[in-house]
Amino acid sequence: MATSSTPVAIIMGSRSDWPTMRHAADALDALGVAWEAKVVSAHRTPQRLYEVATGAKAAGFKLIIAGAGGAAHLPGMAASMTDLPVLGVPVQSKALSGLDSLLSIVQMPGGVPVATLAIGEAGAKNAGLLAAQILALSDEALAERLSAYRTAQTDAVAETVED
Amino acid sequence: MATSSTPVAIIMGSRSDWPTMRHAADALDALGVAWEAKVVSAHRTPQRLYEVATGAKAAGFKLIIAGAGGAAHLPGMAASMTDLPVLGVPVQSKALSGLDSLLSIVQMPGGVPVATLAIGEAGAKNAGLLAAQILALSDEALAERLSAYRTAQTDAVAETVED
Amino acid sequence: MATSSTPVAIIMGSRSDWPTMRHAADALDALGVAWEAKVVSAHRTPQRLYEVATGAKAAGFKLIIAGAGGAAHLPGMAASMTDLPVLGVPVQSKALSGLDSLLSIVQMPGGVPVATLAIGEAGAKNAGLLAAQILALSDEALAERLSAYRTAQTDAVAETVED
Amino acid sequence: MATSSTPVAIIMGSRSDWPTMRHAADALDALGVAWEAKVVSAHRTPQRLYEVATGAKAAGFKLIIAGAGGAAHLPGMAASMTDLPVLGVPVQSKALSGLDSLLSIVQMPGGVPVATLAIGEAGAKNAGLLAAQILALSDEALAERLSAYRTAQTDAVAETVED
Amino acid sequence: MATSSTPVAIIMGSRSDWPTMRHAADALDALGVAWEAKVVSAHRTPQRLYEVATGAKAAGFKLIIAGAGGAAHLPGMAASMTDLPVLGVPVQSKALSGLDSLLSIVQMPGGVPVATLAIGEAGAKNAGLLAAQILALSDEALAERLSAYRTAQTDAVAETVED
Amino acid sequence: MATSSTPVAIIMGSRSDWPTMRHAADALDALGVAWEAKVVSAHRTPQRLYEVATGAKAAGFKLIIAGAGGAAHLPGMAASMTDLPVLGVPVQSKALSGLDSLLSIVQMPGGVPVATLAIGEAGAKNAGLLAAQILALSDEALAERLSAYRTAQTDAVAETVED
Amino acid sequence: MATSSTPVAIIMGSRSDWPTMRHAADALDALGVAWEAKVVSAHRTPQRLYEVATGAKAAGFKLIIAGAGGAAHLPGMAASMTDLPVLGVPVQSKALSGLDSLLSIVQMPGGVPVATLAIGEAGAKNAGLLAAQILALSDEALAERLSAYRTAQTDAVAETVED
Amino acid sequence: MATSSTPVAIIMGSRSDWPTMRHAADALDALGVAWEAKVVSAHRTPQRLYEVATGAKAAGFKLIIAGAGGAAHLPGMAASMTDLPVLGVPVQSKALSGLDSLLSIVQMPGGVPVATLAIGEAGAKNAGLLAAQILALSDEALAERLSAYRTAQTDAVAETVED
Repeated sequence: MATSSTPVAIIMGSRSDWPTMRHAADALDALGVAWEAKVVSAHRTPQRLYEVATGAKAAGFKLIIAGAGGAAHLPGMAASMTDLPVLGVPVQSKALSGLDSLLSIVQMPGGVPVATLAIGEAGAKNAGLLAAQILALSDEALAERLSAYRTAQTDAVAETVED
Repeated sequence: MATSSTPVAIIMGSRSDWPTMRHAADALDALGVAWEAKVVSAHRTPQRLYEVATGAKAAGFKLIIAGAGGAAHLPGMAASMTDLPVLGVPVQSKALSGLDSLLSIVQMPGGVPVATLAIGEAGAKNAGLLAAQILALSDEALAERLSAYRTAQTDAVAETVED
Repeated sequence: MATSSTPVAIIMGSRSDWPTMRHAADALDALGVAWEAKVVSAHRTPQRLYEVATGAKAAGFKLIIAGAGGAAHLPGMAASMTDLPVLGVPVQSKALSGLDSLLSIVQMPGGVPVATLAIGEAGAKNAGLLAAQILALSDEALAERLSAYRTAQTDAVAETVED
Repeated sequence: MATSSTPVAIIMGSRSDWPTMRHAADALDALGVAWEAKVVSAHRTPQRLYEVATGAKAAGFKLIIAGAGGAAHLPGMAASMTDLPVLGVPVQSKALSGLDSLLSIVQMPGGVPVATLAIGEAGAKNAGLLAAQILALSDEALAERLSAYRTAQTDAVAETVED
Repeated sequence: MATSSTPVAIIMGSRSDWPTMRHAADALDALGVAWEAKVVSAHRTPQRLYEVATGAKAAGFKLIIAGAGGAAHLPGMAASMTDLPVLGVPVQSKALSGLDSLLSIVQMPGGVPVATLAIGEAGAKNAGLLAAQILALSDEALAERLSAYRTAQTDAVAETVED
Repeated sequence: MATSSTPVAIIMGSRSDWPTMRHAADALDALGVAWEAKVVSAHRTPQRLYEVATGAKAAGFKLIIAGAGGAAHLPGMAASMTDLPVLGVPVQSKALSGLDSLLSIVQMPGGVPVATLAIGEAGAKNAGLLAAQILALSDEALAERLSAYRTAQTDAVAETVED
Repeated sequence: MATSSTPVAIIMGSRSDWPTMRHAADALDALGVAWEAKVVSAHRTPQRLYEVATGAKAAGFKLIIAGAGGAAHLPGMAASMTDLPVLGVPVQSKALSGLDSLLSIVQMPGGVPVATLAIGEAGAKNAGLLAAQILALSDEALAERLSAYRTAQTDAVAETVED
Repeated sequence: MATSSTPVAIIMGSRSDWPTMRHAADALDALGVAWEAKVVSAHRTPQRLYEVATGAKAAGFKLIIAGAGGAAHLPGMAASMTDLPVLGVPVQSKALSGLDSLLSIVQMPGGVPVATLAIGEAGAKNAGLLAAQILALSDEALAERLSAYRTAQTDAVAETVED
């Protein structure tokens, strides 16, 4: 990835993960946070992973959102090669419904953290929101947009169970 | 919590969680990041939780590390009441070994993220490190200490399997 | 909720839970027990949860039925803020089929009980019946309707496996 | 069980369940609620179960707390033979740590509820508290004792993580 | 059930279990073993269960096949009320795919066995075959039919993977 | 195994399974049923398994009790090579506590049943009892001993929770 | 199987496993490795299994790929009867989604290994690739084809998430 | 690793994995196969992993045995960077007993296989044996030693359950 002022890199193990991971992108869009997405397979393109992860900081990224399914090594391996925060999204897998993805991502050994979100679309959306929360710590305008987003979210929860 | 320049609040559901959660504190200490720890039970002291979570930002905290076991509601409920990033640590439970804690923390609905770490001590340590990674995004000196910490960690992995 | 002589409050984390939770309402209807239902999200509307739970007793409710899915914090958090009995219904979740919902609701720490029912529609129906059983302890007419309901239920179990 | 003014019957599948179930009794003692405990094995003494469950209401009991482990049928079968509320406690089992007990108790079909609590001692304690909450709906003095108990419980949660 | 020379009683918790349990009946038909099937709900018709189970031996039955789903108490409770062998079939449940049914049936305490088969149709078919194997111990003609059935089953396994 | 009038063969995958499986032998002893036990490893002595399983009927055995742990193939493979009923006991395994043993034994495909009992000692004891129940179908004296055993078992369940 | 210069035998428990297992054959085809496939049921055709497994080496095979579902004994039993490497593929099962298949295959006792792959089609494909990797150790031309296959695989991972 | 005629590289994520992984070394020793072992942490020493994995073939290794626990990425990442066969051993983890290790290793996506063995010591021993089976395909003397080992293993299974 070239040097960039885009703060968020979204990577995923396969193009088939995009329908899940685009929810991260949508959340970032809603909050006015720029992102770049690319497919980086830990297993099929380890060299690309190495380049993306080790180069992410120099390229200007502030954090990485990584989604993968099954034996999901992408978030953890990215985390092993950068000091930037890595947010992991377990993509729902076919046989085991994402339980394998979740355990492969969250059970990292002491020393190399991955900030793990929920399985599937909700987790991807929340990765986007968490990225914004982190960036908002040093971006007051974003903090205000985030606050407004959360307020709108609260207001949108109608009390009635039926129309 | 009074107004403070301490960036990290560590909260936990019970004093019995401290032997786990102190690993978060130890990691922060190693990186020179100040923290405050207190017991806040989502279930037994909901009012205290409300005060801590809603007041965390005004009190000067940058993020919250929350550990809990079993039906672990503390991280998610804290996250529902603040825009600050919340890092969740599933404490190992007696009957189900922390699988209940993990699922209760990580499976948050879209809209309210919790950055979840591994079950137990490794997860607590990583919560401390992740907090430092997040804070380092706007603190170059911390970023350097973190980089040194990671380098030392790598160097400490001896290749030999026996002495 | 305004002061009310309605004994049962049904709350749920999302409007999408109503197709499950209406089975609680149907059971209460069948037994002539009044209810009110509203959407209260522990995570997106924590203030509403606070008001509903802390105000439930003064509003005249006798018990609360709470349904939620995933990291299902609504029943336990409601239970933390009222002395009224809280009945929890784990709504079937997408990835983990409600196992996460169940563990998040049932594994409460000592001190704050949630009376947990089965995952999904059967659990919602049973929450309605359990509410009636509890109210019938001090309402002889309801006890008789309940007894008749149970007798009819028994009589409706045809022995033959096919018509 | 002879006719009695004792409101709570505590039954359990084996004498070996008593170290768990006595926590229900202790909670009831703390709130001044009378109880009787006996061993009733669904599988080894089905006739005794039949007599206890069908006779519980006439004997003056208001509700039944039932604890069992493994293929834990006691709570559900008791619930099938009485209109009184039945509270189920999954006792921690040897091989599967109570997951079998939990699923055997909580996954009741629509029509016959069991109010299920957490696995093990916490669940037993909460069964006692829930019983008190239910009885307090028509016993103002008990409601006050319960409220005081909850307040004391909240006050007992020290904020400090170490002495 | 009236006195009968039918050796196998097939009971199930709900009429909705018949599409599964008819595979037991089909296997028995294929081997020329007579059976009777009826719906007996452990939870909704405990009295019927009591009558069927305690009366099965006097009615001439040799063994009982019992199928149920979820908190599946029917096989174990039948086994508690008769000395006849009871064969348990875990019916596939909606949320947990029969894992709850399986654990509820198989994890019986020492003293009261249930011969448990696989979840779903394969288990039902095998319950029929196992019943025949048991009856064949004292019925040489059945033993020969069973042997022929097994031989035919072996012969029917074509080696080729495609036609 | 030489021709024998011993009705029950107890086989197990490893000598380390005997502390579990001897509970089957003890139950058979208590009921006056003769047995022979030997170690037969499906994986390390497949030829011995072949000889024992295919020769069991001719050797005069009526049924086989087979215990194994982990990837427990002994019961199912024995069942594939004999028409005699095979009773399977999942031995508790080190890492997965017998869940692997249970699923490996119980989830047999349609056509080859294994009568599966509970994990561990309770399952072994119940295998002995189930064997006796099966043999008692054509042995009236055994049926009477079994009935007495069950009655004594019921009588031994004291009602009191403490002495 | 007749003597053959075909290096890979693909066996599976049922013809219904072929849609999964053909992915192993496809991978071998892509790498120019010859294979033979046949249905061998451990449970319904144990004699055929015996012949295939004990005769595989003499027939010229170098390794065996075995796929099965549920209580999947085929790979382990084949491994018990040959010194050739056995690669096991857990076929996705109906009720438990292949978790039973996986544990039945992978949890082999010390002494008899099965090289286990992932559940379902991905695992079958990988069994084919692993077979090629093993054969390539003594077949330089295959090693080159394998290397080219892996390079092409890497090149085929487009970086863009959408066209 | 320097160029070497040692055929087997044993790598593991932490020195604490050696008590498990030495069982692989012991099995190789028993069969006269040379090995080298070193600690390579996928997460703490990713550069070392890169060097070991990409250099293994040139260094003369024939295959890699990789053991790791928790979010066990070492085997899969090694497999992504070499064409040599990689054998994965799930080390038993503290909270989840190795279920996380197993799923993280075995559920690899199509394209990059890891030959996975059982959790813990049995799996490590079997990794050693499987390595020998693979090497024996082109080493007749090893094949004979392996055959003798297996025969001795079979002979060592005493039939008697007690001395």
